[in-house]
Amino acid sequence: MVGKTKVALVGIGKIAKDQHVPSIATSDEWDLAATVSREGTVEGAPAYTDIDTMLAENPDIGVVSLCLPPVPRYDFAAACLRAGRHVMLEKPPGATLAECYDLGAMAADAGVVLFATWHSRMAKGVQAAKAALTGKTVESGRIDWKENVRQWHPDQDWVFEPGGMGVLDPGINALSILTEVLPNPVHLKSATLHTPSNRQTPIQAELTFTGGITASLDWLKEGQQTWEQRFTTTDGTVVHLLEGGNRCVVDGEEQKVSNLGEYPALYARMTDLVRLGKSSVDLAPMIHVSDIMTLGTRKDAPDFEW
Amino acid sequence: MVGKTKVALVGIGKIAKDQHVPSIATSDEWDLAATVSREGTVEGAPAYTDIDTMLAENPDIGVVSLCLPPVPRYDFAAACLRAGRHVMLEKPPGATLAECYDLGAMAADAGVVLFATWHSRMAKGVQAAKAALTGKTVESGRIDWKENVRQWHPDQDWVFEPGGMGVLDPGINALSILTEVLPNPVHLKSATLHTPSNRQTPIQAELTFTGGITASLDWLKEGQQTWEQRFTTTDGTVVHLLEGGNRCVVDGEEQKVSNLGEYPALYARMTDLVRLGKSSVDLAPMIHVSDIMTLGTRKDAPDFEW
Repeated sequence: MVGKTKVALVGIGKIAKDQHVPSIATSDEWDLAATVSREGTVEGAPAYTDIDTMLAENPDIGVVSLCLPPVPRYDFAAACLRAGRHVMLEKPPGATLAECYDLGAMAADAGVVLFATWHSRMAKGVQAAKAALTGKTVESGRIDWKENVRQWHPDQDWVFEPGGMGVLDPGINALSILTEVLPNPVHLKSATLHTPSNRQTPIQAELTFTGGITASLDWLKEGQQTWEQRFTTTDGTVVHLLEGGNRCVVDGEEQKVSNLGEYPALYARMTDLVRLGKSSVDLAPMIHVSDIMTLGTRKDAPDFEW
Repeated sequence: MVGKTKVALVGIGKIAKDQHVPSIATSDEWDLAATVSREGTVEGAPAYTDIDTMLAENPDIGVVSLCLPPVPRYDFAAACLRAGRHVMLEKPPGATLAECYDLGAMAADAGVVLFATWHSRMAKGVQAAKAALTGKTVESGRIDWKENVRQWHPDQDWVFEPGGMGVLDPGINALSILTEVLPNPVHLKSATLHTPSNRQTPIQAELTFTGGITASLDWLKEGQQTWEQRFTTTDGTVVHLLEGGNRCVVDGEEQKVSNLGEYPALYARMTDLVRLGKSSVDLAPMIHVSDIMTLGTRKDAPDFEW
């Protein structure tokens, strides 16, 4: 274990077990030194249920990675920053923009690193798409982000509660890619949000941005799951991201992509940020979601039950 | 007219006629040199219906003040900035946060001034309240912002359409004061939004922020209209803003306040900003509104008709 950086994982739910734990376990640079969770534990890691106790008893754990849902996340992040620890935030980085700006300021004051992660930006083909669009003018773009919430968030009622964002929870992944690859910023012109009558957050959304960009987000898609973005530039180049950004095809030609997975890439980036003492808090994807929730036309959709 | 700065007013509706036109008319520094509006005109000022024509025919008009509703405002602002004019934006500065950030970047690129105005921040007692709270810790705060939409926005259906913000249109005035006077930032913890079943935006809202701040916004208040904020600090000081921020009482004692009205103060500030070549685009009040629209729990309210 000598040379590895100790990290505590907070919120041992589906995303922690599916992604964070294996990414840390297979890393040469990270050591899972503790967990904090009401119920979840990870074999071999000391398990805490209280963040303050974990911080007090483990002054040698310099980094805390927060995987719990966005609404409770701020208090945990603030506790870690106040205790002088570097912090990684799962996406979205919080329940409100104001709290994210506040955490950014707290990290700067404390002289520690805050990394608001966007795992989809680390998808293997994203940088190839960005390179293909650099210096060009996008004439039109189309996002189709269609998945089955029952498969990916089984029984996670919080996604339909205020702050859970509904279909904008996967949608923010699409927007994190969009804001990374586009050569110029765009803004929302209109949105339609279909919300189940017995829930608080949308389950389907149609979005229109400036720059000829449209998006269709669907959380009820059964069978084939679709996470694609396609851009056409004024010089006729067509850039196509498939499989959640993991494949990139430019003018019909498959591009060479990164070979690092999304979460291993996030932890590798955190290693760099800690070494540089540099925070990374880009809120552009969340600003688009806030704009969608503010400007969207709301329509009733059928009740949703798991 | 020698020495006065020429300004064009865009969107000659209620707020333009009630506030902007008289503020400009009584100013020693400003000359209303043109208007742009689909229908409204101002006696004595050349009237245009098209922004591009007005800009092309009046290269000597260096400042444009935009009073039209937030949804169409971006295109007008962008046209003015591209034409090298300084721009004042009525509140809220746009329909989306992303477009406001974009306008800020455009103004910087064009080397012109963008002023996102918050008229309530110019209310006569706001700086007295800010001074009284400086260096203190606010323990609790209470905002009551209760007015009659039928009196203040008669037949203005756009306030209930997506992007019109509903009761958060006056509410953002309260939040513009809150974010000016508080010594430390706060963020939203929860909100309840009551939206008429036949409309898109809330007509009443209950807000809870960190720092013990709560707010009650009501757009159905008949009779006595209430625009008040009251803060208690840890050392027992009580700061009370009344009449929309135009009176300030500290520990029971009426404070000396500014004698300049809100809109004359905005135009005086614009004179300073243009002289300094400095933009002022503080989006904190709008970020809170976006957070409210994103995190708020929605409840149905009775249908609303004028």
